Amino acid sequence: MPRSNPNDFGDVPQGCSIPLNFARSSHERNYSIQIGRGILRTIGSEIASRNISRVVIIADEAVALSHSLTCEKSFLDAGVETSVIRVPSGEQSKSIQQAEQLWIALASLNVDRRTAIIAVGGGVVGDLAGFVAATFSRGLTVWQVPTTLVAQVDSAVGGKTGINLPCGKNLVGAFWQPSGVIVDIHALDTLPSREYGSGLAEVVKYGMILDPTFFSWLESHCNKIRLRDPDAVEHIVSTCCRLKVHVVEQDEREETGLRVILNYGHTFAHAIETASGYGVLLHGEAVSIGMVMAARLAERLGMIDADICSRQEFLLTSFDLPVTSAAFDPDILLDIMARDKKSVAGRLRFVLPECIGKVRLVDSIDHNIVKEVLTASSR
Amino acid sequence: MPRSNPNDFGDVPQGCSIPLNFARSSHERNYSIQIGRGILRTIGSEIASRNISRVVIIADEAVALSHSLTCEKSFLDAGVETSVIRVPSGEQSKSIQQAEQLWIALASLNVDRRTAIIAVGGGVVGDLAGFVAATFSRGLTVWQVPTTLVAQVDSAVGGKTGINLPCGKNLVGAFWQPSGVIVDIHALDTLPSREYGSGLAEVVKYGMILDPTFFSWLESHCNKIRLRDPDAVEHIVSTCCRLKVHVVEQDEREETGLRVILNYGHTFAHAIETASGYGVLLHGEAVSIGMVMAARLAERLGMIDADICSRQEFLLTSFDLPVTSAAFDPDILLDIMARDKKSVAGRLRFVLPECIGKVRLVDSIDHNIVKEVLTASSR
Repeated sequence: MPRSNPNDFGDVPQGCSIPLNFARSSHERNYSIQIGRGILRTIGSEIASRNISRVVIIADEAVALSHSLTCEKSFLDAGVETSVIRVPSGEQSKSIQQAEQLWIALASLNVDRRTAIIAVGGGVVGDLAGFVAATFSRGLTVWQVPTTLVAQVDSAVGGKTGINLPCGKNLVGAFWQPSGVIVDIHALDTLPSREYGSGLAEVVKYGMILDPTFFSWLESHCNKIRLRDPDAVEHIVSTCCRLKVHVVEQDEREETGLRVILNYGHTFAHAIETASGYGVLLHGEAVSIGMVMAARLAERLGMIDADICSRQEFLLTSFDLPVTSAAFDPDILLDIMARDKKSVAGRLRFVLPECIGKVRLVDSIDHNIVKEVLTASSR
Repeated sequence: MPRSNPNDFGDVPQGCSIPLNFARSSHERNYSIQIGRGILRTIGSEIASRNISRVVIIADEAVALSHSLTCEKSFLDAGVETSVIRVPSGEQSKSIQQAEQLWIALASLNVDRRTAIIAVGGGVVGDLAGFVAATFSRGLTVWQVPTTLVAQVDSAVGGKTGINLPCGKNLVGAFWQPSGVIVDIHALDTLPSREYGSGLAEVVKYGMILDPTFFSWLESHCNKIRLRDPDAVEHIVSTCCRLKVHVVEQDEREETGLRVILNYGHTFAHAIETASGYGVLLHGEAVSIGMVMAARLAERLGMIDADICSRQEFLLTSFDLPVTSAAFDPDILLDIMARDKKSVAGRLRFVLPECIGKVRLVDSIDHNIVKEVLTASSR
């Protein structure tokens, strides 16, 4: 069946491999995203065939006894020397202090340049371990093994790594492409509901920014998605990865302006996360609120009709996601957004929808209009 | 006159521009090393023509009232918004804590991606500011403005950036090519004698690893070099930059094995620096001792005759450089070297001379032989 049929689960119902090719770079930097069910059990033999001397698994402690252990066993079965370092769960771990602990741990393990880092967990561990890999010995190989929905559909793909400063999210980081991404759909079976829902915010984002058919498909499959029907989940993950790969291949380092569309909702979201203190809201929850704010801003600017705002809000609400923020001071959010690394010379820039499936970057938006939208969006 | 005449000062006595071209990368990453006399006074107009919104000068406090001020005035004259951040002198500044202070300072300055970092000082500031530029907002433009001899002939060229961990030098870092390198020979006029001498160790290294004619030229121009004759200094700087560029262009990220020759003497030197505590010896002084150890190891392995060791030691001594280390425990140095990021799986690897002007990487050297050489080299 063609993908335009909204009842279709895509043409790859049982695992697939999505290649990434960077046109402007050397062959060695291309890699694949492997998507499948139960594939963590074979990760050892998959990676052992590469030119590596050993692996260091950096794992979220929440998956230490589950997915991380599965990976560790698989590496040991494949005869690969394996060490495991656990990282506390939560956004607070994306800190300089945690990066320092990992650097020192890698030094004490006598890690060399043929050691591969295996990042097992959600976006926090992926960003943190990716940054530590990018900067230890001026760059170690890293494999991303996302075990949350938000990481599988978004953060593990594309090579962005980073940590937070107290004054801003992801202000310290590097573009560092992994050698591969291993996405095991089964890892989501044990994901807490709130985490799963948080990932769905990024899923909705991909529909909004790039794919109206996919957006409609999400609307018509709400229940299956909420119940984590495996075919529905695999369709979601593979579709989002394909959409993201298409963008990242053409604009790896946010230079041409294309990649910036992935930040739809994120300028608001980062400000909300910074203002509320990291870890109070899950990232996807902040993105949900941020997308609602962005759509309302677009409506206020006359770019879209109210029904697009409503469809987005209804879909997000169907996934139990928040669509309004706590009562933040709009001036504080504005101040944080002016410092966002995507801002230029303090001017406010937002990715805003033109319709479902298409967004564009809008520059130099009047602070007062943004403030109106922020005020209206707070509870 | 051809360069083979050892009395020649080179074919570019009054300034030159040395281009760097990375064959495997995009055009935008190529840049030039500008070498001249008094060129800091025009740095503002040089850089203002690029697509930048403002500059942040990160300067060694030792040059805050001299070269940094010259740069700042030049930028202000060119109408470029300019901020200055001072960094304490000395290897101790290549720390996570200092990097954190700079990241926070850049955030508080609301730096955006069109801000250029200008690193003014020696190797410490170049490495530190380069690393901070590589990692703030996932990468800012950086210009290297080396004001010490060791930075002008070596560390400012080639894109290596990094900071130290307590357990090892440069263990955290990135390959991050600058947008340009501005080398003002006049900046060396105010350099303390010990700093100048330290730079000459890297100069001797270039003769040893790549250019026997240059080595002979150094032997026959000792006095002019020690007295900082401007033509002699410019010949030294331009020759070393050309030699380094030739290597770095072919092996930007130490992947092919060519760039590793630049580490001649450095495996020993880093271990000596780590064991003695950063900042006790200047980097060049440690490199001087390290090259003597490397030559003696090569002699012990039957690779070279004793007269090559003697010529190198005599030249280093002529430049008032140390050739023996304090009485370190050889076992401690061995342990540190096994952790060096150039080591693979704990095996000891050294760049050793085959003759003056040629070195090669020698792998899996017996720990006991290295220990003998270390023991003999300590006072």
